[in-house]
Amino acid sequence: LNKQSPIVVLDSGLGGLTVVRSLRQALPAEDLVYFGDTARLPYGSKTASVVTTFVSQIIRYLQPLEPKHVVIACNTATALSLPDVRAEFPSLTITGVIEAGAQAAVEAVGAIEEPMIGVIATEATVRSQAYEKAIHKRRMKARVLLQPAPLLVPIIEDGRMDADPLVQLAVRQYLTPLTTRGIDALVLGCTHYPILRGLIEETVGPKVAVVDSADHCAHEVLRKLESAGLRREVSEPTRGTLRCWVTDDGPRFTRLASRFLGYEIPRPTWINPDELPNARAELVDVRSVG
Amino acid sequence: LNKQSPIVVLDSGLGGLTVVRSLRQALPAEDLVYFGDTARLPYGSKTASVVTTFVSQIIRYLQPLEPKHVVIACNTATALSLPDVRAEFPSLTITGVIEAGAQAAVEAVGAIEEPMIGVIATEATVRSQAYEKAIHKRRMKARVLLQPAPLLVPIIEDGRMDADPLVQLAVRQYLTPLTTRGIDALVLGCTHYPILRGLIEETVGPKVAVVDSADHCAHEVLRKLESAGLRREVSEPTRGTLRCWVTDDGPRFTRLASRFLGYEIPRPTWINPDELPNARAELVDVRSVG
Repeated sequence: LNKQSPIVVLDSGLGGLTVVRSLRQALPAEDLVYFGDTARLPYGSKTASVVTTFVSQIIRYLQPLEPKHVVIACNTATALSLPDVRAEFPSLTITGVIEAGAQAAVEAVGAIEEPMIGVIATEATVRSQAYEKAIHKRRMKARVLLQPAPLLVPIIEDGRMDADPLVQLAVRQYLTPLTTRGIDALVLGCTHYPILRGLIEETVGPKVAVVDSADHCAHEVLRKLESAGLRREVSEPTRGTLRCWVTDDGPRFTRLASRFLGYEIPRPTWINPDELPNARAELVDVRSVG
Repeated sequence: LNKQSPIVVLDSGLGGLTVVRSLRQALPAEDLVYFGDTARLPYGSKTASVVTTFVSQIIRYLQPLEPKHVVIACNTATALSLPDVRAEFPSLTITGVIEAGAQAAVEAVGAIEEPMIGVIATEATVRSQAYEKAIHKRRMKARVLLQPAPLLVPIIEDGRMDADPLVQLAVRQYLTPLTTRGIDALVLGCTHYPILRGLIEETVGPKVAVVDSADHCAHEVLRKLESAGLRREVSEPTRGTLRCWVTDDGPRFTRLASRFLGYEIPRPTWINPDELPNARAELVDVRSVG
């Protein structure tokens, strides 16, 4: 491992790009490798053993790139598989997004005595109770209200935006049970959801602090790299690269990813999920972007 | 192969159960094996090579059951993989659902000179142009209007029903471009969609014939079994069994499948999709149902 090694970011699809955006701001010089498991998304309706198998396959596949850090930029995968994959890959430093999301929520409710914190997330994340645990570890007296929002990932992966009445109705259906209870903060407990952040903020109103895990997660990665002496020096003209892998090679990923990040991303490399267990990633032809 | 061999029905999730329902009516004595690839659904946003890999894995896995017939009860899988899997498994008789759907549409528009036929389907099925080809083969002068409806499968797999305003809005968004053009018939070009048939019929109004492929597909299977001398005799007290496999073992499948079929189905067998390429199905503990 050295400063030149890349940081790996993985997700079921597009959602982890919200973490890529924050990492790019916090760590502009780092090379990023993004893996979107687009052939097998969504993860949020699936069980722990299936999701753990998927995540473990992806990390094993990317291990030849010798990542100095791995970010599981998916709340479902973090909730269902983080302890297992940490045990399976003891030589890697692996960070999830749930601790960061819980930390962001607790900071957002600040001095409120018994804060009520709403969390929207996939069904699997809700079932795992990972957010209750992570929030209660930090603020025992917080009341945590969990709301599964299973259609938001398919809606976002479909490329629909805030102005679409169906998106507005879905967001309203999912948030009304939380806003009527009077939450103080809302955690976007899925890395896809910040893509609809404007609409979500409008729906919950100005009194509810909307928080997501991306920025906190990026700063956690920064701190860990610094304390390990693995952070790249920032030299102005050099910017890190972004290289993407996907398990399904539709044109959709490049189009939506570029729209979301605000710049053109290079065409992702396609790996058939059937070949994942026996293949090993190679870094060739990295083009600098973003 | 003999009359006692089962019929295999496969789909990405729940949709193929609409075909199971029709097969049960047309062929009450047959044993049915259902495979729902719930860990990797939806198929409709994925590419041909990925979907073909999935279907081929499933058929290879179920081949030890010596099925006398295989039904690909998924329009996306039929459109993207049927010729390839027929070539890969020359000893099996494999039927898809698109020819049956096209036949149903052509019969529904009957004597209309230049009928306009609308088709709602997944993005992958629309891109494949399989419906245009299958309809034009039968009625050269038909005008075919294709409308991708990518969110309907996630909505149906989420267990939402006709009365849900979000379901109504989604159906209206997808059907309005077709009804304003004045279609004579609407093909439900995905085996999931008949689950919302009531709402769809209400939305298009009484002048538009709504057709799906399930009944035609079941009768095609019946004809093929009869001509091969493989149809089981119907003896009143004996009813065929239904045995289900899924790649993800959530409680959702059993709950929604039972609700949809109108009777309790036995708990499905779970096969991890990671193990599919090297595993072989075994028939044990079949309980009679339905």
